[in-house]
Amino acid sequence: MAKKAKDRKQVLGEIKNIASDVYKKIMKKKAPEITMPLRSLSNVKYSDKVGFFELIGKMKSRTLTANTIKSFAQTLLLMNESKRLARIGDTESKREAYYVSKNWGDARFDSDDEAFTVMDDVEAMLQVNREQMGFIPEEKGGAVAGKLVVIDGKDKIDCTKFGSGAYSIPSSVEHLEFKTNAKFVLVVETSALFQRLNNHKYWDKANCIIVAMGGVPTRSTRRFIRRLADDKKMPVYVFTDGDPYGYLNIYRTLKVGSGNAAHINEFFCVPQAKFLGVTPADIEHYKLPTHPLKDVDIKRLKDGIKNDPFVKHHKDWEKALQKMSKMKKRAEQQAFAAHSLNYVIDVYLQEKLKNPKTWLP
Amino acid sequence: MAKKAKDRKQVLGEIKNIASDVYKKIMKKKAPEITMPLRSLSNVKYSDKVGFFELIGKMKSRTLTANTIKSFAQTLLLMNESKRLARIGDTESKREAYYVSKNWGDARFDSDDEAFTVMDDVEAMLQVNREQMGFIPEEKGGAVAGKLVVIDGKDKIDCTKFGSGAYSIPSSVEHLEFKTNAKFVLVVETSALFQRLNNHKYWDKANCIIVAMGGVPTRSTRRFIRRLADDKKMPVYVFTDGDPYGYLNIYRTLKVGSGNAAHINEFFCVPQAKFLGVTPADIEHYKLPTHPLKDVDIKRLKDGIKNDPFVKHHKDWEKALQKMSKMKKRAEQQAFAAHSLNYVIDVYLQEKLKNPKTWLP
Repeated sequence: MAKKAKDRKQVLGEIKNIASDVYKKIMKKKAPEITMPLRSLSNVKYSDKVGFFELIGKMKSRTLTANTIKSFAQTLLLMNESKRLARIGDTESKREAYYVSKNWGDARFDSDDEAFTVMDDVEAMLQVNREQMGFIPEEKGGAVAGKLVVIDGKDKIDCTKFGSGAYSIPSSVEHLEFKTNAKFVLVVETSALFQRLNNHKYWDKANCIIVAMGGVPTRSTRRFIRRLADDKKMPVYVFTDGDPYGYLNIYRTLKVGSGNAAHINEFFCVPQAKFLGVTPADIEHYKLPTHPLKDVDIKRLKDGIKNDPFVKHHKDWEKALQKMSKMKKRAEQQAFAAHSLNYVIDVYLQEKLKNPKTWLP
Repeated sequence: MAKKAKDRKQVLGEIKNIASDVYKKIMKKKAPEITMPLRSLSNVKYSDKVGFFELIGKMKSRTLTANTIKSFAQTLLLMNESKRLARIGDTESKREAYYVSKNWGDARFDSDDEAFTVMDDVEAMLQVNREQMGFIPEEKGGAVAGKLVVIDGKDKIDCTKFGSGAYSIPSSVEHLEFKTNAKFVLVVETSALFQRLNNHKYWDKANCIIVAMGGVPTRSTRRFIRRLADDKKMPVYVFTDGDPYGYLNIYRTLKVGSGNAAHINEFFCVPQAKFLGVTPADIEHYKLPTHPLKDVDIKRLKDGIKNDPFVKHHKDWEKALQKMSKMKKRAEQQAFAAHSLNYVIDVYLQEKLKNPKTWLP
């Protein structure tokens, strides 16, 4: 299991250490240098024990030269902005940080992309997620309903009391605390299935918490599920469409993270997640209406089998992807409606929850 | 102002009327026929008084022939499914309806698109929004915070009690009731700006309700704002990026609807909406950092000035779009951060709310 996130004070301490190293070197008339992990798939490995795509130690360094002077200055100024945010007790979005840089004279960011790259560098350098530095994502999190009380400052938010609506996860979740007696967290891909489960108060019957990702989960949704699961030692079950996108983009990203963001996977992965369905075997067993695989699906399956360290590690996943390649078919999680509208609740989820052998790791 | 939505009982009554007409014709050995409004921009007009893109009466009809037998049967079966949903007190998503059709034998939908087109036809024919027939959208609504209590069945949802989180609008909002003393609804484009306003409890200082659209608002977000504004006679102020997409895709759609969904605009438009900013004049007045217009922006401006009945009706909008064409620049709503992080709250929103002359209609 991953180590605990740093608190804002620790982050500030590290910023000061790095800054004082730079300062000392300059005072000694030596070229200052900052070092950060290389951010790419070639710099990660996967093991069950650790549970996420882990950095294997390749580093890049940025020495102050005529060529690097601008990005060097930007790196330091962004660290300073993080310090300022902690002092005034505020946060800012990535995009706001870009606009704040307009006051940095010649060091200002010329484009969003430039700003976001330097922010990723600082994040990797400090080995924190940028929310801990006070920089919050643009997009908000998913929706939550069920047997959970979220404690956010003075507010106690009871997620059983939202009618057909739900609790909308904020952009940053580091400060939240949880109270729950639920048995598990059920994470679903589509908002429509979430709405069905919520309308029928599935979370009451099953004594659980339901979370809608609405496609590939945002940072704050991933972090929310992770913090909840760690804090309350709860299992997490994932229910996506039965297609390569659901398996490799949504589930794999949620569980172990992704390659180009390897430096933050330890905060955003959910190693305790298990894949409930829709598995290729479910498509056959439940006689679901299917769609043919598209070219992009076939390519994604091939890539996954050949290159994905997670798939290579788990033979069960490799077999499942090969099975789908042969079937040449995919099925959506709403396809159970062909049997009857609430078949997914009354039959599918009940049977699956009882049979861990039908899950994928 | 648009007429009131029909309740589910009225909708059922109309379904029975249409079905009984079809039945009688068949009994008389005549070819049955169903009639519905043509759904296209060529069949709408705009006037201030009505407040939304209104159908001007062009109709198409579907007579039962060898060629139309499948879509004719699908239309009747979908009406029957709506009746069944009312009886069992459930709803289903568009996609679930597609899967339910797998039990219709030869009349089953072969693709999602086929299903969605017939559903739009039935919606137009009955002059209701499909939520009133029990068919709910795939996507959920936006986020809400502030001085509002939403009443959903037994649950009273107090939107001041969610910490940094928010109330997530459900897929269907027809059954909701509202309690509020707020002075206005502030609708913002980006989740990031919503998060800033919510973190600083802007809604408390300004005595208002804030809603995040997260881009072009979904059906349920539009309907939620409309029902709230009608019910509580509240003004609605809209705050988007200062660009053609914010003006013509987001704001115009929210306020008056769109061409290809003209048959439902009367339920989904928000005629009481006013455009607060970011206007082209704001970009200059507040000296905002800008981006150059992209080709797609320039094309959208030209199209809007030339073809959009809403822009043609409002000279102020025409002038604003022409001004932006000349400036060749756009600005994001987060650009105020260049002045200081909370400038948008402390200066911009305060000044704008006091000066209706700086708004656009």
